[in-house]
Amino acid sequence: MLRIVLVGIEGPVNLGVIARTCVNFNVDELYIVKPIASIEEALNYAARGRDFLLKARVTDSLEEAIKGVDLVVATSDEGYSAGDMLRQAVDLNGFAEKIFPRTRSVAILFGRESTGLTREEISKADVLVTIPANPSYPALNISQAVAIVLWELWKQRSITATNIPPLASKETLRQLLDLTVEISKLVMTTEDKITRSRILWRRILGKALLTEKEAALLRYWLQRVRRHISSDKT
Amino acid sequence: MLRIVLVGIEGPVNLGVIARTCVNFNVDELYIVKPIASIEEALNYAARGRDFLLKARVTDSLEEAIKGVDLVVATSDEGYSAGDMLRQAVDLNGFAEKIFPRTRSVAILFGRESTGLTREEISKADVLVTIPANPSYPALNISQAVAIVLWELWKQRSITATNIPPLASKETLRQLLDLTVEISKLVMTTEDKITRSRILWRRILGKALLTEKEAALLRYWLQRVRRHISSDKT
Repeated sequence: MLRIVLVGIEGPVNLGVIARTCVNFNVDELYIVKPIASIEEALNYAARGRDFLLKARVTDSLEEAIKGVDLVVATSDEGYSAGDMLRQAVDLNGFAEKIFPRTRSVAILFGRESTGLTREEISKADVLVTIPANPSYPALNISQAVAIVLWELWKQRSITATNIPPLASKETLRQLLDLTVEISKLVMTTEDKITRSRILWRRILGKALLTEKEAALLRYWLQRVRRHISSDKT
Repeated sequence: MLRIVLVGIEGPVNLGVIARTCVNFNVDELYIVKPIASIEEALNYAARGRDFLLKARVTDSLEEAIKGVDLVVATSDEGYSAGDMLRQAVDLNGFAEKIFPRTRSVAILFGRESTGLTREEISKADVLVTIPANPSYPALNISQAVAIVLWELWKQRSITATNIPPLASKETLRQLLDLTVEISKLVMTTEDKITRSRILWRRILGKALLTEKEAALLRYWLQRVRRHISSDKT
């Protein structure tokens, strides 16, 4: 299941064209979070994506729009900033080829034309993905970015292999994340480090494509670590 | 040398956005044949592609726009019609990977929003390329089509992007693996579990595409964990 989530979209032309592109590449669901653009006006630019746009879910919060999805993917043209844990993006190529094909349901978030996604919005995602474009001007128009991302995913979706193991469920990954947070609280000295460690682990779990089997062993490993550290405390 | 040729483009928004996309993907030249769209108006939508649009060559004929180019490529969403020699298109994938990298100078033609390229215009090209999209609605907006084609060609031209973070080195990953082994030895009860934990971590580090920044924090996290556990032992 592929869902596109537009957060705070501003331009009706962009919104209409994106709806059309969603149909061109067979997107299952479109969610629109707090749009500034008029959907009524956007319908004029949707061509045969009109019905799809009319079926889009408009929500008041990002949380509603990503509920129940296995993998939440933020996008940004600012994919990299050396000292910033939030700006450690995966290249669209690696994402489309490696991470996306292994996931049952994916929501891809695109931010405002003017300012993109906020840091808080990005931190709600499992992975940050970027389109590696011209270093001197990598900022694409949002509808172009959607088109390129959808095209890359489209190419991957037609291949269904059966000789690959099932991936860990979202619930399993959540439990693993909780375990790492417990450990971080035991070993880290500041709140900031605990927070950043949480982002790190969210990214690791988002990117590592753990199979069910691997996740089970990692859980055991983390539980052992936690037990040893907490016995130290008592 | 990569040249984009827009034939009879109708919409100023499309024209502006296409100019921007050309800069995003480092196109060398833009030719505009008999435009219907106002270039003046299009400048409003070009963002930092403005100067590139101002430098575009406007011509009265397609011949002028493809003169001196090694390979002329027409594009159409009608890539295939069984009995029609003109509609025997190459898949964009095959083109970008096989044909494009072997050619010194390429002009890619995009037709009108309403009616595309005429049969006569297509017949002037060496190759017809199509984007294989949703069979029930493969017709992309022209600016989306340009974006996807440019993205595919961009990947072949291997210009190094700077908005993606550098990945951790192999040596860094090896050090991280060693750290996990040390911890496993402290917390695991059997040799077999230590061995399997090592395999697990090797896989995690192999798949997670850790950036340098992420690896540095993970190292710190593991070091903290190790210190807490070994103080427990002494």
